[in-house]
Amino acid sequence: MTDDLPNPALLPAGLADLLPPDAEREADLVEAMMVVFAGHGYERLKPPLLEFEDSLLAGSGAAVAEQTFRLMDPVSQRMMGLRADTTPQVARIAATRLSGQARPLRLCYAGQVLRVRGTQLAPSRQLPQAGVELIGGAAPAADAEVAVVAIEALAVVGVTAVSLDVTLPTMVPALMEAAGAGPALRSGLAHALDRKDSAAVAALVQRQPGPLAVLPELMASTGPADGALAALDAADLPPAARAIAQNAASVLLAIQARAPGLRITLDPVEFRGFRYHTGVAFTIYGPGMSGELARGGRYLSQNDEPATGMTLYPDAVMRAAPGSAPRPRLFLPIGADGAPFRARGFATVAALATEDTPQRLRCTHELKGGEAVPILPKD
Amino acid sequence: MTDDLPNPALLPAGLADLLPPDAEREADLVEAMMVVFAGHGYERLKPPLLEFEDSLLAGSGAAVAEQTFRLMDPVSQRMMGLRADTTPQVARIAATRLSGQARPLRLCYAGQVLRVRGTQLAPSRQLPQAGVELIGGAAPAADAEVAVVAIEALAVVGVTAVSLDVTLPTMVPALMEAAGAGPALRSGLAHALDRKDSAAVAALVQRQPGPLAVLPELMASTGPADGALAALDAADLPPAARAIAQNAASVLLAIQARAPGLRITLDPVEFRGFRYHTGVAFTIYGPGMSGELARGGRYLSQNDEPATGMTLYPDAVMRAAPGSAPRPRLFLPIGADGAPFRARGFATVAALATEDTPQRLRCTHELKGGEAVPILPKD
Repeated sequence: MTDDLPNPALLPAGLADLLPPDAEREADLVEAMMVVFAGHGYERLKPPLLEFEDSLLAGSGAAVAEQTFRLMDPVSQRMMGLRADTTPQVARIAATRLSGQARPLRLCYAGQVLRVRGTQLAPSRQLPQAGVELIGGAAPAADAEVAVVAIEALAVVGVTAVSLDVTLPTMVPALMEAAGAGPALRSGLAHALDRKDSAAVAALVQRQPGPLAVLPELMASTGPADGALAALDAADLPPAARAIAQNAASVLLAIQARAPGLRITLDPVEFRGFRYHTGVAFTIYGPGMSGELARGGRYLSQNDEPATGMTLYPDAVMRAAPGSAPRPRLFLPIGADGAPFRARGFATVAALATEDTPQRLRCTHELKGGEAVPILPKD
Repeated sequence: MTDDLPNPALLPAGLADLLPPDAEREADLVEAMMVVFAGHGYERLKPPLLEFEDSLLAGSGAAVAEQTFRLMDPVSQRMMGLRADTTPQVARIAATRLSGQARPLRLCYAGQVLRVRGTQLAPSRQLPQAGVELIGGAAPAADAEVAVVAIEALAVVGVTAVSLDVTLPTMVPALMEAAGAGPALRSGLAHALDRKDSAAVAALVQRQPGPLAVLPELMASTGPADGALAALDAADLPPAARAIAQNAASVLLAIQARAPGLRITLDPVEFRGFRYHTGVAFTIYGPGMSGELARGGRYLSQNDEPATGMTLYPDAVMRAAPGSAPRPRLFLPIGADGAPFRARGFATVAALATEDTPQRLRCTHELKGGEAVPILPKD
């Protein structure tokens, strides 16, 4: 029911009402995913929606600074921001209130974020998020864990047949650095890689080969993880790039061990759109055309603590998840007791006045001889 | 853990982080209460946190206009407000997107509201709310239903022994109107009633008796519902006040029939702090000193539709609710499978590196011979 009769004057662009039954479904999905996170030892936080902009926009928050609504706090006369992402808040809490707790910290959250502007592809300006952060652990097993926990959370709400796309956002910068590439070559390569223009990449690389010479073959290796890992293994990489490749191999092996059937792709040369990632980065795509369900990866939390995490997008998850049967609605005549039927999963809808009929109250069942009986549609 | 080491510079006054285990507990309480609402046929909505201020501050929203954060929408160049209450949003949806649905509508919601300033008694500027609205039904049974549903939601999360305080905010205005009281007498009486100063009320009433003459006896009748109802029944009331009293009696009888043991008090002359109520108003107090857990009552929704509702305050409910046992944490050595233990309610906390010990990961259990065994504290 979210699509009928939108009145453009009623709500600002990109802000919407979630109506029945979607609002209940989204909340149920989120809480089911949070149960999975809790099951893996991720403890829930609830940071406020508003905080001082200097803490909100620190660290990884800088990536969403332009997208953050700002407003003046009349109490402190300081500027506050409405959060556009939750990860910076978790980083703040880890570095302050939880600074004394042994690492790694496993934390999770669910809530709304707000953005100043939507994009053409993602017009919403209020987005639900549910995520996990593992802070203070550098092991490849940590990256694997957050990816596998996110996949498990999606499976619990019925979203299977997903694919995990892995990128190494530090690989191309490491190769450029080793090659001593200048600004013009760097931006030319970035542009060509972004367009996935292999001819342009090959032409640019020829101007300054050495460590960059592997780029065309790495680009061509993008695809199922095993093939891409083999190409990385065979490639002639400088030490920093070799370390990135070995780390990626460890992460992917750990994921495959824990999620054997999972479809994994690896793109070793993709590096845009992961602005604050410092290691392996993940995107989870749903089956068919259902789009991005989650993103995450390794980053530096406050005080340069190594961290990794995943953010799931419950609005996208809901579009990918199978529909659930609506709750049956039992009409309760005036004075009838609905408690036994609620205990069996019915919504009991009480008549409050004589004009309240089962049809008006959109009931699916009525009481007959003390039993809940389906109401058959009239001819 | 919400009280240790607050750094006043870190977060704006009245905005706080909810830490483990409180954040999970609050979310669990809210969802458990939402299940009760759904069981009574209340369908969940999720309005956006931000909307145009003219719709947000319409109707009952006017009561929180001064408490609403305002910000400019760069897309539309119109002013938006961050919601300070959810009821006006539900009213908007009922009057627009759900205008074609038969009445009464039963709707529910859970989410955050934000306020520009806290008060001395309630310093928080971000408050969780969970509530029900019954729109398009004028029957006393509707008022009784929202009160009883709220009481049941509290009971489900372990908050029993509550008291329901009922007020009739239209009673004193109806008596003043019938008496033709002028502005000076009205404000004098309001002030005296607000201070519960029976001598001052008696003195003021003597200046213009008639319909106001009942005020001292109504004031004295405040207390357990049965006694107060009897006093109302015996009082000499003008017709409008008599209708209010009869409606109150119907509502209270319906509540008593559905919640026989409930402690109910009635204050027929309290009328401040219920600025938009047009009939019976409710406050639910927790046991002991735990304060207000919920408020609600009858009001006019958009297009003057009769409506009634209750808003529960999950932060207060959490303070009043019994603590729950923390989730046991099972240490998982590298490579061990935690799934069977998660299915039994454990959080399984995986070692990711050799320095990850059960103690560091704050585990309560470890694996011995394939079983989860409590870790005994060392001497």
